Amino acid sequence: MSRVLVHGGEVVSTTGTTPTDVLVEDERIVALLAPGTADLFTVDERIDAAGCYVLPGGVDVHTHMEMPFGGTQASDTFETGTRAAAFGGTTTIVDFAVQRTGEDVEESLAAWHAKAEGNCAVDYGFHVILGGVDEASLKAMDTLVAHEGISSFKLFMAYPGVFKSDDGQILRAMQRATDNGATIMMHAENGTAIDVLVQQALAAGNTDPVWHGLTRPAALEGEATNRAIALAEVAGGTPLYIVHVSASQALERIAAARGEGRNVFAETCPQYLYLTLEDHLGAPGFEGAKYACSTPLRSKHEPHARDLWRGLRTDDLAVVSTDHCPFCFNDQKTLGRGDFSKIPNGLGLVEHRVDLVHQGVVDGNLSLQRWVETCATTPARMFGMYPKKGVVAPGSDADLVVYDPRATTTVSATTHHMNLDHSAFEGAVLQGQVRTVLSRGRTVVDRGQYLGAKGHGRYVRRGLSQYLR
Amino acid sequence: MSRVLVHGGEVVSTTGTTPTDVLVEDERIVALLAPGTADLFTVDERIDAAGCYVLPGGVDVHTHMEMPFGGTQASDTFETGTRAAAFGGTTTIVDFAVQRTGEDVEESLAAWHAKAEGNCAVDYGFHVILGGVDEASLKAMDTLVAHEGISSFKLFMAYPGVFKSDDGQILRAMQRATDNGATIMMHAENGTAIDVLVQQALAAGNTDPVWHGLTRPAALEGEATNRAIALAEVAGGTPLYIVHVSASQALERIAAARGEGRNVFAETCPQYLYLTLEDHLGAPGFEGAKYACSTPLRSKHEPHARDLWRGLRTDDLAVVSTDHCPFCFNDQKTLGRGDFSKIPNGLGLVEHRVDLVHQGVVDGNLSLQRWVETCATTPARMFGMYPKKGVVAPGSDADLVVYDPRATTTVSATTHHMNLDHSAFEGAVLQGQVRTVLSRGRTVVDRGQYLGAKGHGRYVRRGLSQYLR
Amino acid sequence: MSRVLVHGGEVVSTTGTTPTDVLVEDERIVALLAPGTADLFTVDERIDAAGCYVLPGGVDVHTHMEMPFGGTQASDTFETGTRAAAFGGTTTIVDFAVQRTGEDVEESLAAWHAKAEGNCAVDYGFHVILGGVDEASLKAMDTLVAHEGISSFKLFMAYPGVFKSDDGQILRAMQRATDNGATIMMHAENGTAIDVLVQQALAAGNTDPVWHGLTRPAALEGEATNRAIALAEVAGGTPLYIVHVSASQALERIAAARGEGRNVFAETCPQYLYLTLEDHLGAPGFEGAKYACSTPLRSKHEPHARDLWRGLRTDDLAVVSTDHCPFCFNDQKTLGRGDFSKIPNGLGLVEHRVDLVHQGVVDGNLSLQRWVETCATTPARMFGMYPKKGVVAPGSDADLVVYDPRATTTVSATTHHMNLDHSAFEGAVLQGQVRTVLSRGRTVVDRGQYLGAKGHGRYVRRGLSQYLR
Amino acid sequence: MSRVLVHGGEVVSTTGTTPTDVLVEDERIVALLAPGTADLFTVDERIDAAGCYVLPGGVDVHTHMEMPFGGTQASDTFETGTRAAAFGGTTTIVDFAVQRTGEDVEESLAAWHAKAEGNCAVDYGFHVILGGVDEASLKAMDTLVAHEGISSFKLFMAYPGVFKSDDGQILRAMQRATDNGATIMMHAENGTAIDVLVQQALAAGNTDPVWHGLTRPAALEGEATNRAIALAEVAGGTPLYIVHVSASQALERIAAARGEGRNVFAETCPQYLYLTLEDHLGAPGFEGAKYACSTPLRSKHEPHARDLWRGLRTDDLAVVSTDHCPFCFNDQKTLGRGDFSKIPNGLGLVEHRVDLVHQGVVDGNLSLQRWVETCATTPARMFGMYPKKGVVAPGSDADLVVYDPRATTTVSATTHHMNLDHSAFEGAVLQGQVRTVLSRGRTVVDRGQYLGAKGHGRYVRRGLSQYLR
Repeated sequence: MSRVLVHGGEVVSTTGTTPTDVLVEDERIVALLAPGTADLFTVDERIDAAGCYVLPGGVDVHTHMEMPFGGTQASDTFETGTRAAAFGGTTTIVDFAVQRTGEDVEESLAAWHAKAEGNCAVDYGFHVILGGVDEASLKAMDTLVAHEGISSFKLFMAYPGVFKSDDGQILRAMQRATDNGATIMMHAENGTAIDVLVQQALAAGNTDPVWHGLTRPAALEGEATNRAIALAEVAGGTPLYIVHVSASQALERIAAARGEGRNVFAETCPQYLYLTLEDHLGAPGFEGAKYACSTPLRSKHEPHARDLWRGLRTDDLAVVSTDHCPFCFNDQKTLGRGDFSKIPNGLGLVEHRVDLVHQGVVDGNLSLQRWVETCATTPARMFGMYPKKGVVAPGSDADLVVYDPRATTTVSATTHHMNLDHSAFEGAVLQGQVRTVLSRGRTVVDRGQYLGAKGHGRYVRRGLSQYLR
Repeated sequence: MSRVLVHGGEVVSTTGTTPTDVLVEDERIVALLAPGTADLFTVDERIDAAGCYVLPGGVDVHTHMEMPFGGTQASDTFETGTRAAAFGGTTTIVDFAVQRTGEDVEESLAAWHAKAEGNCAVDYGFHVILGGVDEASLKAMDTLVAHEGISSFKLFMAYPGVFKSDDGQILRAMQRATDNGATIMMHAENGTAIDVLVQQALAAGNTDPVWHGLTRPAALEGEATNRAIALAEVAGGTPLYIVHVSASQALERIAAARGEGRNVFAETCPQYLYLTLEDHLGAPGFEGAKYACSTPLRSKHEPHARDLWRGLRTDDLAVVSTDHCPFCFNDQKTLGRGDFSKIPNGLGLVEHRVDLVHQGVVDGNLSLQRWVETCATTPARMFGMYPKKGVVAPGSDADLVVYDPRATTTVSATTHHMNLDHSAFEGAVLQGQVRTVLSRGRTVVDRGQYLGAKGHGRYVRRGLSQYLR
Repeated sequence: MSRVLVHGGEVVSTTGTTPTDVLVEDERIVALLAPGTADLFTVDERIDAAGCYVLPGGVDVHTHMEMPFGGTQASDTFETGTRAAAFGGTTTIVDFAVQRTGEDVEESLAAWHAKAEGNCAVDYGFHVILGGVDEASLKAMDTLVAHEGISSFKLFMAYPGVFKSDDGQILRAMQRATDNGATIMMHAENGTAIDVLVQQALAAGNTDPVWHGLTRPAALEGEATNRAIALAEVAGGTPLYIVHVSASQALERIAAARGEGRNVFAETCPQYLYLTLEDHLGAPGFEGAKYACSTPLRSKHEPHARDLWRGLRTDDLAVVSTDHCPFCFNDQKTLGRGDFSKIPNGLGLVEHRVDLVHQGVVDGNLSLQRWVETCATTPARMFGMYPKKGVVAPGSDADLVVYDPRATTTVSATTHHMNLDHSAFEGAVLQGQVRTVLSRGRTVVDRGQYLGAKGHGRYVRRGLSQYLR
Repeated sequence: MSRVLVHGGEVVSTTGTTPTDVLVEDERIVALLAPGTADLFTVDERIDAAGCYVLPGGVDVHTHMEMPFGGTQASDTFETGTRAAAFGGTTTIVDFAVQRTGEDVEESLAAWHAKAEGNCAVDYGFHVILGGVDEASLKAMDTLVAHEGISSFKLFMAYPGVFKSDDGQILRAMQRATDNGATIMMHAENGTAIDVLVQQALAAGNTDPVWHGLTRPAALEGEATNRAIALAEVAGGTPLYIVHVSASQALERIAAARGEGRNVFAETCPQYLYLTLEDHLGAPGFEGAKYACSTPLRSKHEPHARDLWRGLRTDDLAVVSTDHCPFCFNDQKTLGRGDFSKIPNGLGLVEHRVDLVHQGVVDGNLSLQRWVETCATTPARMFGMYPKKGVVAPGSDADLVVYDPRATTTVSATTHHMNLDHSAFEGAVLQGQVRTVLSRGRTVVDRGQYLGAKGHGRYVRRGLSQYLR
């Protein structure tokens, strides 16, 4: 048995901050102590958190490590990606196992387990993407919920011919989820309409990266969001979680449903809070390809970012995740030269989420409590991992971040730990710094040093959502 | 030259009533005269309208005469249907020519012209249903707008495999309409989701007519309505007209779009104002089949009817049409015994629309002005027939109704003039009576006598909508 | 008996335009004739309207001629003001008789009759301002509605100590109006809160005209509007008409109430459609005083004007009136030098309303039909003067405007006919021109010549609103 | 030094439940321990919480002990009232010190301190009611915030001539609060309009208790709520807290403001969640007087209660407090026989709040987390007492409730501890029971036995709100 005491810091919870010492025994937190109380017993190691926040380890519920997409695959493996996560104060990821049409759901899941097992620096769970809703996959949902620790299934209203489910399939999957208690995650964009716009743009010779955004109008994100909400209602009130909300129109529909008390939830991602269609996706030359993700960056001439920050304050947006899906500029993003529709979609952000949202606290856009809530506590509750994850409490996993609010973090591809040859926030200087990170009691990062190990991270079996109304 | 004077009545317009004599010369109105002025010239015939309203002839912009559907066809021909319309004070119908997937649009239209020509008692126009949006049909839209007097095209979000267009097809057709000025009419129900519910109901042994309604939930009408509005926005602001609105949820989305000043319009039909899922579609035995139409009758436990009346008052619903599509109970409706999904969809109402909405005036649900506006003036403006139709004005076609507000009308299959063996309003006694009807100057109905003739009715070439904002 | 034929023009109604000849006999329109039909009659005079619109004479339901205010009085008398109205195509005004606290309502009305009688160039009616709601004035409301042709009473939520009624008085007056059918007109600004802001501004040395606007924030117009709507609901659904709406916040509350189907109506005025707080009220030096009116001009950095145009399109704003209340710059506006709160409030616009709204048609902000509807037909219906006023129909007063849409009108204090030493639209060149104006059959203005006479205008006894839902 | 261990229970926090032992040293919590860890410490006393929840002590931020009202005073003294609170699991109250017009604010506060000091069973704080906003009281606000631990001031829009501030006074107080950081609490009903309705009802002979409710329509609560929100906006964004929300209309305005991200907060009270105008205020004879409170109970024919529960779920209602202001039926409520307006307003509920909201959890209306959040954590944060109060955390005051969810509580005047001769929930059997209550480390109630002492309760100096966005 080994005892570690994190002392002298301010524990930040969803309701406030308190000076508290945290006693860790092996992999778990065993006590929260008022300062001065710790002298009553012996500890093996003391971590000085004076002047720092002590946070529950970050929980990023939207990553795509080694994700196959458009003939290539996301550049971070589970090994590199989870190590980068650890550097950024994220101690749990929930990645997406992908079932494609015709594939067996459980086999697909097994394939993803094989990729992750023994490779991860921090703990990980899986959602399952259902690329082919049919009798077999519906049945598999029940099994996965009951026996495999999978309680959330993602569907797509975009990418016809690849991932898209039609509204009948969506309805069936939602009905099943209503019955077995799972949450349906939705990529809400009207892909059928978008495909028309994409074809028209290409036919008109509009091939630059910015057209990736211009052919995915905000109105079609709003539309699909509304449709998903309606289908969940028809399905009997299925818990619904809209991923990567980027458009005011989508947020408006989510807020309206939530105002009616429905189990509708949503996340946004840091890129939508800071980056824009004009300045980033529309950067000169082919630079914009670095910023191609779906949903796309939105226009700075519309109040999307302001509305998203407000949504985070009002809890209409409950979670900040990253949709981490990195593709290198060279050899990967460049597949889309001359045809924006061939740019692999995705940004690499798993390492910087906690810092980017903390910057929002510094800028006055969010409270300290909401920072912790959106980055750790709510994602853990939303996806059935609480109180194991997402909270600093006795009995919880000792996933802890000692965060120094006075230091700064400079973002750069030259220094980050993701396997990615560029950064969407290159050169950004963010207020705050992840100083020490514990994963299940083990210090995996300390002052920029990696002290963890491949294979330390374990699979997290998840229960049903603990965030329902 | 023949002169007819309709004298002594109160002309009702969209802004009020005035005692006015109407002078008709041949087919046109040539003068509106203050009472007492008519003595200045000679007339050939005088129609005494004392104590009566004088209205512009009704315009029913949603009928399906001889419509093929589900292996049978609507029981009214253009001959019987337009005669019934005349009896009910409707002097113009706009019917739907149907292009099915793979068919040529212009040939389809020609086929419909062939059915109507020489057979109609009153004037008629055509919308075109596009059952297969492709390059050829998109091109045909331009031609029809420019040369054929067709300025409105109907698409379906329901009936997959029959009429349904996918969202990409809808977007393309809307884009074309934005360019050529046409109006897109939309049957807004999520047919893909509905089909799942239908299959599930049948599989569960729920085969009675009421399940026709239960498998088409109001939320899916609201959803599709929102989607159509979003697509019209993406298409550049296409004029959009939602047909047969029956659900509060749809109206709410329409009202929101209209509040933003968009060119979004809608109609409802008398059945949704008076009949309900429980009392009619859910009638004992197979009686409910008489009331199977799509969108379906809605629950009396929800405020749909109240909201629809309010929508008519606020102009969020601009038009009352009938969706006249009669099927006899014997031999037609009975096709759906044991399987509600096989009941031919449609009600026969072309004869009673004007009376049924007048009853709303009597009941205090609508003003006299809105009666005329929703039943005649706005439909004529909405679909490019004004001032030829829809208004009592010099130069307009002499389509006139002398309406006696003190007499009553009893509805019954035994007395009505539609080719239909039952009536959705059997036994209803409505306050008000169509006394005399002129179609282009000819008295076609007088005190219950039919004085018209097959072939009197002419095709109305329509221009673009005159109701845009 | 004298017959005049206005021929060759396009009559514009609320539903469209038709080439129509208008036959006038003495003071009334007796016939509308299809072109070519006029030879049915002999006529004494022919007015050629070729190439022109023929409109119902404008109806301005918000003027303050000779209005005492802040120790001075509005610079237009009934004589000069109604003559200017005629020049601008307005053939009916409804002015405000003012009862102050302690005064007898009927005596106040008599005083206003005395000012107007024998002096007006065009017809006029009166609303009554109730400055002191008590038992006597409540009783007088009934009498005025029943016997004096007064069917609308204005209350103030602003100007404490001068005109302001408290919410209890407002409620009582509304209850009475619910009973007798009258309409309550409301100046909706929270005057009690505004007075605090005014005192604070003056105390801080902020005395320039722009502070007139800065101390009357839009939020307080929105608040008072909401309060008036709530009180009308509590009073049993009193018809409510909000005057001079200038703020998006007020419009939003009005639109919400209207969406619920309530009898809530509103007007805006041309100044709010074109002028702004920064550019006009905030003009250098003391120039801004020319633009001091209440409600004030709003900030160009907020979407008020855009929203007001949209409100006119959606009928959430039913009427454009002027709130004509001119004060000369010299000797009158200058009373407020060094203290913005002493600037007499009001602009002189009665002469330019029809042209200014027509400019909105030219600019694509409004349809031709809505121009006529907001400037003539709806105000006449709203205040019980239809079909005598507001419509070109047989039997109506022959108040007609021949309007040349191709000519232009240049606005200037050097050429206008109001008794006012400046113009809020000095130098503006507007598309369209009032060419000929008939008031009850008499040509009072023709091509810039005044052919009318003091005393031609008669008092219009009004009935209850004809615009209720 | 004395150590108490509460062991074996489930600590309920705002984010979930965890089996946790709570170690108390003297007055504070010093450690939260994973089960099994407690042997790290020696303890003096062990409280077995097996099978029970362990909650932070309840915080009731709206009580009126010994409150003078209508010629009598609330029947609970600080002694009896806080003892009853303790029995009900409430360990902190925030009562209202009252400044009346003309009185000195600090002297008023001193008077209230004198009433409470040495008499309370549990801790207490004060808000201050400003009955007369003037220069002196505005200045006093600053002093109280800075030096006296008072950070919230209540104003009234009702009770003209007694407590009502006019909108100018409200604006001034809000501006001051914007500057000094205080929260403005608002009784939001339009008292001026209500007084008219009251006078009219009495004049019409409608004197029964039910008229107390009928003369305070929900629309006037909605109106005043909207007005308070607008004034707070004009005042620069003052933190605003609407007390005792009972009407859907008020909630709708609060939710809209919150959706815009404003610092607008609200509470409701148990009576509005369970009792109705018809069944309780309208009880036969004079029984209804027991239920006379303001805002009043609302009609069961409208969805107020359903909406309030939804508001609690969505956090549009952040707090449940009691507005505890008991008056005995005999001698007090009976003052209003024959004149409902003379019934002392108020209900006695301080003892049953925690149980009544827990019943909502049992009924499926609220989550366990929201129970703790609305009854303890949020009120503590809202009014600047966190983490001293409202949370089970190291360093916090040892205010703890051991709550047995399987036992029941029967409410009755014969057994309750309030000084009140009746109960609004007489006979109700509620699921759940307060078993043991600790106030600052001392067991004050255990299994129905009072173990506390008058004077144990101390004054809580409060800071600014910790619940701002």
